[in-house]
Amino acid sequence: MAVSKPSIPKGTRDYSPQEMAKRNYIFDTIRGIFKLFGYLSIETPAMENLSTLMGKYGEEGDKLLFKILNSGNFLKDIPESMLTEENTNALIVKLCEKGLRYDLTVPFARYVVQHRNEITFPFKRYQIQPVWRADRPQKGRYREFFQCDIDVIGSKSLLNEAELIQIVDAVYLALKINVLIKINNRKILNGIAEVIGESDRLIDITVAIDKIDKIGLDAVKQELSGKGVSEKAIEQLQPILTISGTTNEKLDKLREVLTPSPTGMQGIDELHTIFGYIDAMKIEQEIELDLSLARGLNYYTGAILEVKAKDVEIGSITGGGRYDDLTGVFGLKDVSGVGISFGADRIYDVLTTLNLFPESTNKSTQVLFANLGKAEERYCLPVISRLREQGIAVELYPDKVKLGKQFEYADKRAIAFVVIVGENEMQKGMLTLKNMKDGTQEEMNINQIITKFT
Amino acid sequence: MAVSKPSIPKGTRDYSPQEMAKRNYIFDTIRGIFKLFGYLSIETPAMENLSTLMGKYGEEGDKLLFKILNSGNFLKDIPESMLTEENTNALIVKLCEKGLRYDLTVPFARYVVQHRNEITFPFKRYQIQPVWRADRPQKGRYREFFQCDIDVIGSKSLLNEAELIQIVDAVYLALKINVLIKINNRKILNGIAEVIGESDRLIDITVAIDKIDKIGLDAVKQELSGKGVSEKAIEQLQPILTISGTTNEKLDKLREVLTPSPTGMQGIDELHTIFGYIDAMKIEQEIELDLSLARGLNYYTGAILEVKAKDVEIGSITGGGRYDDLTGVFGLKDVSGVGISFGADRIYDVLTTLNLFPESTNKSTQVLFANLGKAEERYCLPVISRLREQGIAVELYPDKVKLGKQFEYADKRAIAFVVIVGENEMQKGMLTLKNMKDGTQEEMNINQIITKFT
Repeated sequence: MAVSKPSIPKGTRDYSPQEMAKRNYIFDTIRGIFKLFGYLSIETPAMENLSTLMGKYGEEGDKLLFKILNSGNFLKDIPESMLTEENTNALIVKLCEKGLRYDLTVPFARYVVQHRNEITFPFKRYQIQPVWRADRPQKGRYREFFQCDIDVIGSKSLLNEAELIQIVDAVYLALKINVLIKINNRKILNGIAEVIGESDRLIDITVAIDKIDKIGLDAVKQELSGKGVSEKAIEQLQPILTISGTTNEKLDKLREVLTPSPTGMQGIDELHTIFGYIDAMKIEQEIELDLSLARGLNYYTGAILEVKAKDVEIGSITGGGRYDDLTGVFGLKDVSGVGISFGADRIYDVLTTLNLFPESTNKSTQVLFANLGKAEERYCLPVISRLREQGIAVELYPDKVKLGKQFEYADKRAIAFVVIVGENEMQKGMLTLKNMKDGTQEEMNINQIITKFT
Repeated sequence: MAVSKPSIPKGTRDYSPQEMAKRNYIFDTIRGIFKLFGYLSIETPAMENLSTLMGKYGEEGDKLLFKILNSGNFLKDIPESMLTEENTNALIVKLCEKGLRYDLTVPFARYVVQHRNEITFPFKRYQIQPVWRADRPQKGRYREFFQCDIDVIGSKSLLNEAELIQIVDAVYLALKINVLIKINNRKILNGIAEVIGESDRLIDITVAIDKIDKIGLDAVKQELSGKGVSEKAIEQLQPILTISGTTNEKLDKLREVLTPSPTGMQGIDELHTIFGYIDAMKIEQEIELDLSLARGLNYYTGAILEVKAKDVEIGSITGGGRYDDLTGVFGLKDVSGVGISFGADRIYDVLTTLNLFPESTNKSTQVLFANLGKAEERYCLPVISRLREQGIAVELYPDKVKLGKQFEYADKRAIAFVVIVGENEMQKGMLTLKNMKDGTQEEMNINQIITKFT
């Protein structure tokens, strides 16, 4: 075997123990709250049939799927002519039956349809797994990253929307991140498009509206105009986009404008109901009705939400909404769902920037037993077993090397205490406990050690 | 979009909430013990460069790697002549730069070399992640499955071997599985091969020895003979294989036979030391020196171990050993390590067969609040928030449907208690708690509910 210089594919990452501890702090916090609200965990395979994935994310998405080469003689049954053509798409589906999942939403929809007879509806599930996209890697964009999705499927109740907002509130309170929760409703956006007479341009309008924060009102108007939206419609749109006041004031004003659109009015009613629930739930983080919030994905049909960290300049850290027909593409019609996704990588960055990871994520082993030789090892082993029985995380340094080197190990591993046992201690039946921070030493018996660390 | 019938690639699995709870019980138990012993978690990407993986698992292993088709125009730079040849191996490395990891050992070796300047040695790490193999799927063999590895790298101390046995003991005590821990040493096997004059046939001999339990002594002798091992050597081998007595008796007898082989004698000394440590550690599960234990992998160089469940007929559920040069292939020489791998799927099967999963893995939500309408929802929401603040997992049924349907939901979800709030309860400021098991109902106030569930 030739020696190869070790590296990993671009856009992927190794997670060191320190990073794992921090990531697990995020996942454990989120998972704990999901469970408190009765959500259940599922996992799906990394590989899906390419037929499950293709066509679900648009033409661009198809290109960004990682495809897995068929095993065995993959050229068999492929006509030679196909191999010399430039049309690689037709060839891909011959060469590859499987692909890596691109998100958790499509596999979840597939799961619900495939297992519909085993599932108890309403089905409240969460899923925390990696996804893969052949995007061009750049700062903050990876080819392998974790998604953290939570959905309720099979219930149209707006309590679900409110509950997801409550979960967002609970998660960010637990993580100590101040956030702004922005809410809107696709039906209101549809109503607006309808009222201004541009119903067939809903996508253009919402995509443009989505950019209002980033590029400003004028640029958005220009973009709409460029897309063929009439000047009259753009003028009608403007006051709606710049509406202000409290949530109730905004909803009241909207109600006036959207009276001609039943869809729009329904959207307003929905938000009214959701805000009513939120009041009763005593949400602590700031919530805002934001009519410029559109979110790009086409499958949303009702309430949509997005969460921003207040103290760090970064994109949305959580987002989602109501979708009325996610499973239709797999043959199960009229199953309504609502879900949100937590962006673990961005949350990680926010916690790092604000220095909010708790001290405990930097700790693992509580006590290191120094190794002074064979006799001392034998003396320490039963003591160590007793400490572990009490739930204390303990290591025995495996080699008899210089004490200085063992202390260095403790320092680098952020182990705060070292137990030293030499002849003196063995004779007395005691243990010397060294505090690595201030260097002080104290002779203790095993029960005193147990008391100190439990 | 055409409607496609949902399915997943053969050899892969969806994990339902019930399965997830059971799997997490296994992983959480194992992880908790790893941490108690000071092991640190790392994760590596699912995709590795194909150059990292190829040639590490033999010719057959190369075939079983899942390869990922290059993005973009993957036919560019491939000469037409290559596409019409039958030699697909040369073509694969042109079509695919990346592959899915096949185990956790090679990625770990790559990780150690790549990050050697950040790692504190001895490096005690664990890693629980899925691996992928394009094996022919069959009962109990999957194309995606989890491995659960724990290794110490950068220390030659035999304390590490003993500690891993201690961890095996702790894990299976916690899981309540009775096991037999079999131990051997590759140096002893080398010594045997040396003494019988068949040193260059070590692999043949160990592979054959590995089969002694399955096919019996006669068949093994026949197999060795078929591989060209001399009749004289096979006769010399026989008494060693059928050695009996206590561990110390076995070691003493071996010492006589292996006196001419320094390697063999070193193997005996190593086991002697390890068994000495084990005595001091008070291992509770049964441990046996088993000279027929060989393990297939070529990279083991010292102690090897394998664990079998006593009460279920199934293959090894944990195995591993000492390897002296795992990282050499990536350019870092002379780094010794020792590690074991827990087989999560087989452990799952053992726990299922013996009905050993704790009752708690079947539970999630503690209390379901029935939904009797808008006013009742408003009444319940702050109550539910207070219960969750106390760490009680609570759900509010999202829709006002017939109570019977809500009870059915509780039953199917194994939720043991339902709180019912109607006009009567709202007037009195009370809650009715229904026990779903015996059907009894009790009127309680919120504090009584909190006391009951915390």
